[in-house]
Amino acid sequence: MSYFDAASAAPLHPVARQALLASLDEGWADPARLHREGRRARMLLDAAREAAAEAVGCRADEVVFTSSGTRAVHTGIAGALAGRRRVGSHLIVSAVEHSCVLHAAESSEKDGGTVTRVAVNRAGAVTPSAYAAALRPDTALACLQSANHEVGTVQPVAEVAEACRAAGVPLLVDAAQSLGWGPVEGDWSLLAGSAHKWGGPSGVGLLVVRKGVRFAAQGPADERESGRAAGFENIPAIVAAVACLRAVRAEAAQEAVRLRELTERIRTRVPELVPDVEVVGDAERRLPGIVTFSCLYVDGESLLHELDRAGFSVSSGSSCTSSTLTPSHVLKAMGVLSEGNVRVSLPLGTAEEDVVRFLDVLPAAVAGVREKLGAPAPAPADVGRTEELVVDSLGKRCPIPVIELAKVIGDVPVGGTVRVLSDDEAARLDIPAWCEMRGQEYVGEEPADRGSAYVVRRTG
Amino acid sequence: MSYFDAASAAPLHPVARQALLASLDEGWADPARLHREGRRARMLLDAAREAAAEAVGCRADEVVFTSSGTRAVHTGIAGALAGRRRVGSHLIVSAVEHSCVLHAAESSEKDGGTVTRVAVNRAGAVTPSAYAAALRPDTALACLQSANHEVGTVQPVAEVAEACRAAGVPLLVDAAQSLGWGPVEGDWSLLAGSAHKWGGPSGVGLLVVRKGVRFAAQGPADERESGRAAGFENIPAIVAAVACLRAVRAEAAQEAVRLRELTERIRTRVPELVPDVEVVGDAERRLPGIVTFSCLYVDGESLLHELDRAGFSVSSGSSCTSSTLTPSHVLKAMGVLSEGNVRVSLPLGTAEEDVVRFLDVLPAAVAGVREKLGAPAPAPADVGRTEELVVDSLGKRCPIPVIELAKVIGDVPVGGTVRVLSDDEAARLDIPAWCEMRGQEYVGEEPADRGSAYVVRRTG
Repeated sequence: MSYFDAASAAPLHPVARQALLASLDEGWADPARLHREGRRARMLLDAAREAAAEAVGCRADEVVFTSSGTRAVHTGIAGALAGRRRVGSHLIVSAVEHSCVLHAAESSEKDGGTVTRVAVNRAGAVTPSAYAAALRPDTALACLQSANHEVGTVQPVAEVAEACRAAGVPLLVDAAQSLGWGPVEGDWSLLAGSAHKWGGPSGVGLLVVRKGVRFAAQGPADERESGRAAGFENIPAIVAAVACLRAVRAEAAQEAVRLRELTERIRTRVPELVPDVEVVGDAERRLPGIVTFSCLYVDGESLLHELDRAGFSVSSGSSCTSSTLTPSHVLKAMGVLSEGNVRVSLPLGTAEEDVVRFLDVLPAAVAGVREKLGAPAPAPADVGRTEELVVDSLGKRCPIPVIELAKVIGDVPVGGTVRVLSDDEAARLDIPAWCEMRGQEYVGEEPADRGSAYVVRRTG
Repeated sequence: MSYFDAASAAPLHPVARQALLASLDEGWADPARLHREGRRARMLLDAAREAAAEAVGCRADEVVFTSSGTRAVHTGIAGALAGRRRVGSHLIVSAVEHSCVLHAAESSEKDGGTVTRVAVNRAGAVTPSAYAAALRPDTALACLQSANHEVGTVQPVAEVAEACRAAGVPLLVDAAQSLGWGPVEGDWSLLAGSAHKWGGPSGVGLLVVRKGVRFAAQGPADERESGRAAGFENIPAIVAAVACLRAVRAEAAQEAVRLRELTERIRTRVPELVPDVEVVGDAERRLPGIVTFSCLYVDGESLLHELDRAGFSVSSGSSCTSSTLTPSHVLKAMGVLSEGNVRVSLPLGTAEEDVVRFLDVLPAAVAGVREKLGAPAPAPADVGRTEELVVDSLGKRCPIPVIELAKVIGDVPVGGTVRVLSDDEAARLDIPAWCEMRGQEYVGEEPADRGSAYVVRRTG
């Protein structure tokens, strides 16, 4: 088995395992107690805080351990918004943040706040100027991920932090995907991380609140973690998480080069090996271990199962792999193809031969799914017809509407149009993406009795 | 070393350790993913939920795993209050709940809710009739612990649940201290627990919300745990926690008898071995492993250190052992002596000889602290004086005001009074308690320039 889903959760690092075992015997007591077991637990917690601060590049008393990265983000956003309530309640996020950031933003909207979602380019990156333009006199907080979790694109955090600093607005950086690779650059104000993303155990998040940042912890009071994270500290897991962060940092520079070569190979080879594939995300400014591509005429769930059977665990932003049957908001914001989407995220130490084997099995896996779905051949035949064609894909789900479109485009005369009727959310993203990949013109979307009509003009 | 502070945190049970180790390799992946590591994690989580439900006596889909017992309580109270917002925002708690319940109540008050704190008797128990009397048409929720964490008193949960049920008000039971001993009886609506109290790992709480209970999860949305506990599930710890709960339940009946005998021995022997001691909490309706007593003329912190040096780890509700320098709210609500307070909470498997040794070293430890503080001899000498005596204890902390009172009471003629000036919060509790122990009359408290004047009449 090759596990290529490290961006969801990394397997426990041997250093984390060892540290966890050792501290289960030393760190289980209540660090607030005066007896020796309590004092021992307190010492472990203090040492972990010092080490975490060093790895992040902050002061120990700025570090709060939470029970997850999500909790760190929720606590950080709520506390920073409340701390600047007098300034206003405007929040800025990028459109491609992790869902936990977006959910916190929705929660703030429900409480009467306003939210600006800064758009990204086709590579998934925000521009510092767009961020700066979103800043308002009533902006309480801005949030930006250090790197995207679905496509690996690195964001211009330092430049955005500078713009925020100039406007006197604190910037919260969700560093969940990058903290194992190195500290976040730039003059940010708050930072969140998640241990199980860097090989640490589940149950440990990291929230850093710089001195001087106005912060008012929300929810019931609690004395633990400077009043910022309620509940008994999970010290063995905290110790393991921090020991692991130091360990992965020690090998980060070397491993980054190696994984970057492996993902570069996937970026290059997949479009050569598989027809009708779009590799998404920034080719240069990206995390070392993540590469994402989408395959036309393929449904993500079937492809995941094919790859799983072949021994590869990957994830997907396709609509059919989400419980809500909508494509990933990241792919949506980027405006790229979402069908047949595959995210490969390599854990530390991934062997080269596993990647070679992945490239071996991928073409057949994709072809198999396409065959089952009756996808058209890569080069559609050219047969003339005059009137506007209508494809009724109502009730059919991704990737069927695009497959049906592709099947008839050859019947449309050059300059003629075809209307695809669809009530599938993914079609809104995938039909324009298909047009771009095929060099056809996407005319636009029109309301229809049910769902929408997507109009495509054949240009060649 | 003898660790007698299991009510704060129990050392990791061998079964929990073993289950944790096994599931670290199997349960680290994201249970929401479709690949085999994800499916394996999901299976572990589902099995743990089934087992937890069986131990609690509820349905699996009523169980939510949270990151701590505190988090379970906070989530449960906030969700239940919000779910019944239309009925009103009145909350009932007992005066001796765990601080996390009281903090949630304060938080609700801050948001405009009203709170009734039901008083307890001198043994620390509420009466069902007092609870029933607190129910109002706008009562959204009532909370009651299954047993008290500081004195071990078992609460009449089943009767209170019946009264609540009759009024259509849901009852949330904080079962943190008792869940390892058995399921909570009665027709409760919500229940909270904490794994590290029953020998499981830190980082796992349990929230049960019965079907039919109106519940609206608060905070940003999250798909995990039925939308009731945001953040990545800590599956290895959850598996360990539930395996441990089953293991301790299997030995609970036998171990309860054994520990009850040991704590009974402490209850009986301590007042025989140490003069001027008050054993607090209900002698009959109590948890097997907890016994609490307070020693006149002793400061809790010094006694803790003496016992720590002698090899015993206990905790204390004395004011000097809390960061706020106020006595435990539990002892306060019971109206018992708080100075020199010691809680002994025996972990499973405590050896009889450790308890014997504790009873051996306790008298000297108490006597040592009393000597250092210049405490009066147990039987004060009787010397006559006429005018009202004033003892100025301003600026002095527990147990000095009581010691100074005891030193002069012999100088007061029978029927005469003495005024103790004190600005120490503990005096309000400890001077009346001393009067009760000494058979003197506590006349009352009067405002003074600084602090208060506590008036005591010598009756014999």
